[in-house]
Amino acid sequence: MADKIFRVNMTDLSTSIEDVPADWMGHGGRGLTSTIVAAEVEPTCHPLGRNNKLVIAPGLLSGTTAANSGRLSFGAKSPLTGTIKEANSGGTAAQMLARLGCKAIIIEGMPKGDSWYNLHCSADGITINEETELIGKGNFAVIETLAARLNDRFGSISIGPAGEMQMLSANLSIKDPDSHLRSGGRGGLGAVMGSKRIKFISIDSTDGKVALADKDAFNAANRTFTKALVDNPISQALGQYGTNVLVNIINEAGGLPTRNFTSGQFDGHEEISGETMYDTIVERDGKPKHNCHKGCVIQCSQVYNDADKKYKTSGFEYESIWAMGADCCVDNLDLIAEADHLMDDIGIDTIETSVAMGVAMEAGVLAFGDGEGICRILKEDIASGTPLGRIIGCGAGSVGRAYGVTRVPVVKNQAIPAYDPRAIKGIGITYATSTQGADHTMGYTIATNILGVGGSVDPLSREGQVELSRNLQIATAAIDSTGMCLFIAFAALDDEKCLPSLIDMINARFGISLTADDVTNLGMTILKTEHAFNLAAGFTNKDDRLPEFFSEEPIAPHNVVWDISGEQIDTFWDF
Amino acid sequence: MADKIFRVNMTDLSTSIEDVPADWMGHGGRGLTSTIVAAEVEPTCHPLGRNNKLVIAPGLLSGTTAANSGRLSFGAKSPLTGTIKEANSGGTAAQMLARLGCKAIIIEGMPKGDSWYNLHCSADGITINEETELIGKGNFAVIETLAARLNDRFGSISIGPAGEMQMLSANLSIKDPDSHLRSGGRGGLGAVMGSKRIKFISIDSTDGKVALADKDAFNAANRTFTKALVDNPISQALGQYGTNVLVNIINEAGGLPTRNFTSGQFDGHEEISGETMYDTIVERDGKPKHNCHKGCVIQCSQVYNDADKKYKTSGFEYESIWAMGADCCVDNLDLIAEADHLMDDIGIDTIETSVAMGVAMEAGVLAFGDGEGICRILKEDIASGTPLGRIIGCGAGSVGRAYGVTRVPVVKNQAIPAYDPRAIKGIGITYATSTQGADHTMGYTIATNILGVGGSVDPLSREGQVELSRNLQIATAAIDSTGMCLFIAFAALDDEKCLPSLIDMINARFGISLTADDVTNLGMTILKTEHAFNLAAGFTNKDDRLPEFFSEEPIAPHNVVWDISGEQIDTFWDF
Repeated sequence: MADKIFRVNMTDLSTSIEDVPADWMGHGGRGLTSTIVAAEVEPTCHPLGRNNKLVIAPGLLSGTTAANSGRLSFGAKSPLTGTIKEANSGGTAAQMLARLGCKAIIIEGMPKGDSWYNLHCSADGITINEETELIGKGNFAVIETLAARLNDRFGSISIGPAGEMQMLSANLSIKDPDSHLRSGGRGGLGAVMGSKRIKFISIDSTDGKVALADKDAFNAANRTFTKALVDNPISQALGQYGTNVLVNIINEAGGLPTRNFTSGQFDGHEEISGETMYDTIVERDGKPKHNCHKGCVIQCSQVYNDADKKYKTSGFEYESIWAMGADCCVDNLDLIAEADHLMDDIGIDTIETSVAMGVAMEAGVLAFGDGEGICRILKEDIASGTPLGRIIGCGAGSVGRAYGVTRVPVVKNQAIPAYDPRAIKGIGITYATSTQGADHTMGYTIATNILGVGGSVDPLSREGQVELSRNLQIATAAIDSTGMCLFIAFAALDDEKCLPSLIDMINARFGISLTADDVTNLGMTILKTEHAFNLAAGFTNKDDRLPEFFSEEPIAPHNVVWDISGEQIDTFWDF
Repeated sequence: MADKIFRVNMTDLSTSIEDVPADWMGHGGRGLTSTIVAAEVEPTCHPLGRNNKLVIAPGLLSGTTAANSGRLSFGAKSPLTGTIKEANSGGTAAQMLARLGCKAIIIEGMPKGDSWYNLHCSADGITINEETELIGKGNFAVIETLAARLNDRFGSISIGPAGEMQMLSANLSIKDPDSHLRSGGRGGLGAVMGSKRIKFISIDSTDGKVALADKDAFNAANRTFTKALVDNPISQALGQYGTNVLVNIINEAGGLPTRNFTSGQFDGHEEISGETMYDTIVERDGKPKHNCHKGCVIQCSQVYNDADKKYKTSGFEYESIWAMGADCCVDNLDLIAEADHLMDDIGIDTIETSVAMGVAMEAGVLAFGDGEGICRILKEDIASGTPLGRIIGCGAGSVGRAYGVTRVPVVKNQAIPAYDPRAIKGIGITYATSTQGADHTMGYTIATNILGVGGSVDPLSREGQVELSRNLQIATAAIDSTGMCLFIAFAALDDEKCLPSLIDMINARFGISLTADDVTNLGMTILKTEHAFNLAAGFTNKDDRLPEFFSEEPIAPHNVVWDISGEQIDTFWDF
């Protein structure tokens, strides 16, 4: 059976299964969510109103046996940034939806009353059901309850209280194989699902399977691809230490934003580093390696236990640890793990929320280093929607406006993550020009600026950064369409067999003959589609700028400011 | 002595008295503040950072005996809207600054430490002084304390707690002849003064006088001008009932936004009307007529006493009464007067704050009609800066974002005032195209749409509204430059002797020979200067739109939506 569009109209509570328009056939993941949002959403609409749509799309290879192909893309107009938005995540949902023959779910409209709903996807299609029991509950309660309601192989996409309250940092939580959570984190897409009064989407795909046009070619390519991933030294480091291997590396580079972006190094970096985390995990009988979806051969996730050797969190990422650690000066990994667990349960972006806490610390709401205070605000304020909870739950820009703070690290109102653009200038270009607000994953120049992957570009120089960011943003848009985890990029940049084998898999899946140029063109087309949406929404090149303070306040240890001109930034779009 | 620029640098705490550049010589009031802001402020700067400037300028005729010439203009980049901003106000400061030979005060930079300051203007120039006693105090305490510190004819411009806390709706408060307050209300300019850590500006002008090039011609023109004002029936109605004469008129027209803009008529309109207010004032030994500055012959202000015949408030405006009255469904004039007094003391815009309360009511923070609740939030939350106080104190858009409300009546993040654009379409063009966010005073089409002044344009038709708003916006920009109160416009539109006599006064003041065309050109130049600033700040025609809900939700009694297209709105700038 050909893949279908599952369309859900929340205004009249109807669903339909539609053929995939020819224009959308070659797209998956981010390419498909952005194409659909651009085609069907009025760019100037209110992101939490009935004219926005939430689009969910597995990648082109999702549901196959291709290694690391379990990413699911979520797209909408973002309530945080006002731009087009794609957030993607691991977990089991992408593979399960793909096996149901679901090319994308499009959720539109908005119910009139106060009722809440859930959606259920199965071989029979998609249904809308009223939901009462789980309203107000955290994401972990959703998974526990669904485990009792459904067969034991269910998948789920849910929102916590933050999404129900339409907080602008609310995320989407996706169940992993061990009933832990992965997050479609950035841009407040959980608030969009909340605005449509959908608490969760459950998936039953017991029987489904993805068809392959050429099974043998696919399997051969997958073996080559898998070997490239497994042999890559960065893949191996990610497996051992998780993404948190970066704390010591970025601190050494002087680009670890500390104390609300007033220094590039954190005295407490050893206490929160990947190495310390690894030792702690091993000592407490946790798992340093853990996969967020079947078929992942990198396994950057982990199971982090508390001091009593009880499960605390997984998918404990560098950016989350940096944000509450260095940026809020909390040098205690257990407090950060506790906050990470709370944020997963509440359903709120760890980067946006912790950077917002750093701005709140600058405003004097709580003291730098007060990790207990952060956990208290998460539990007592954000989870229940007090006014303080809403200020912080709406992100770093929200805190800045409420408290008159001018040192607010955001681009297009989205918090700047774990790499200071003054000391690592390539990533500053990505923050400025990304179609989705500040987001390191849109064009991860750290690879080349710091890790020496895909060549080398001096992080402190102005030279070459625009080109670096542009090439990576184009490649990323394409990778985000395949269902592949972005961490395949390290192998793709340095192992000449990796990218061709990925393209071979796509060709073998669909019986087509894409070339490397086709993939590059796909990336460029996606970026241009997204950019056009933003221009139609009223954004200009003036929005492609870093906050003023980066140009005015040098940071230690390099004593550097952001010094790439607006004119130079604008050349990004010369392609 | 020629007029001078008083420049205050808060970074190094220095002042200088400068000659007026030739380019600025023909400007006053809004024309001068906008010209200076456009010349000296980087459009993309953070409005609460050290690169913004607060400019204060009397009008061209301020300080003379010209009737109604006591307006003072304040300009900056607005922290509420991000646009260029001019707010003007009555009170005594404009006349006193003009008599000191002050063409404008330019306040720039920002002090490094935590100290607060005041500025003092006198015949000796301007000084910066550290201030401790009045920090944290309300505006009335400032005036009381200054009355003890200074001679009894001092003037003052101050901020309350809202401005100190840099809330985005903080206003500037200007002392009137009876030590009551007038407000430079909109756009958060009080937060800009707060960001520069200036609590107040005091003015001593005991000895000053404005020179006239041709005293006899001036006096003759002033007699003609004054007669035109006094004879005008709308001037007379404003004198008797204040601006609040409009409650019944706008309710009858079906354009009185009610219950957060969900109806065009308010059941409780009689209880809050100008007629009821007049009867109450008379019954309680108040004053129906009161002037905010010497020389005002309209006297739209009043002294409103409480039930114990004690002073409660003055300058009790239609828009303030509408906002807490109809928009929040509070049909109790005494509660509205109490809130008006509190907002004056806290130093926060009555329109923005009350519209924000209406959005908070829709969010369920308090119930529609709960006037006691509004007063409690003002006293307990906004005055002390609790998180709820900061959410509401940062305006209607802030409340909408914090609580996920989509029916948020703002343009460029500034609250839409007391005239529904669905039922009075000309004012919708003004809200959309104004260079300063939604503001009825920028081009008061109510005159022609409803009051039959300057002709007649059907308020419910799409025809002629762009031209009407354009002509009025051009004229208003010019009037706002003269120091004249906008209420001269009724006479100017309908009495052929009014405008020529105003121009004659300007010519006699400066020894020049402006024509009516020159004045129109001045207005057009000001609008274009302001518009260019906004474009350079990143605004586009997409920002010149009303919120989505106006096009989707018809309101009673006319059952009409906003139906003027973006293309038609954009023709506004065809001049």
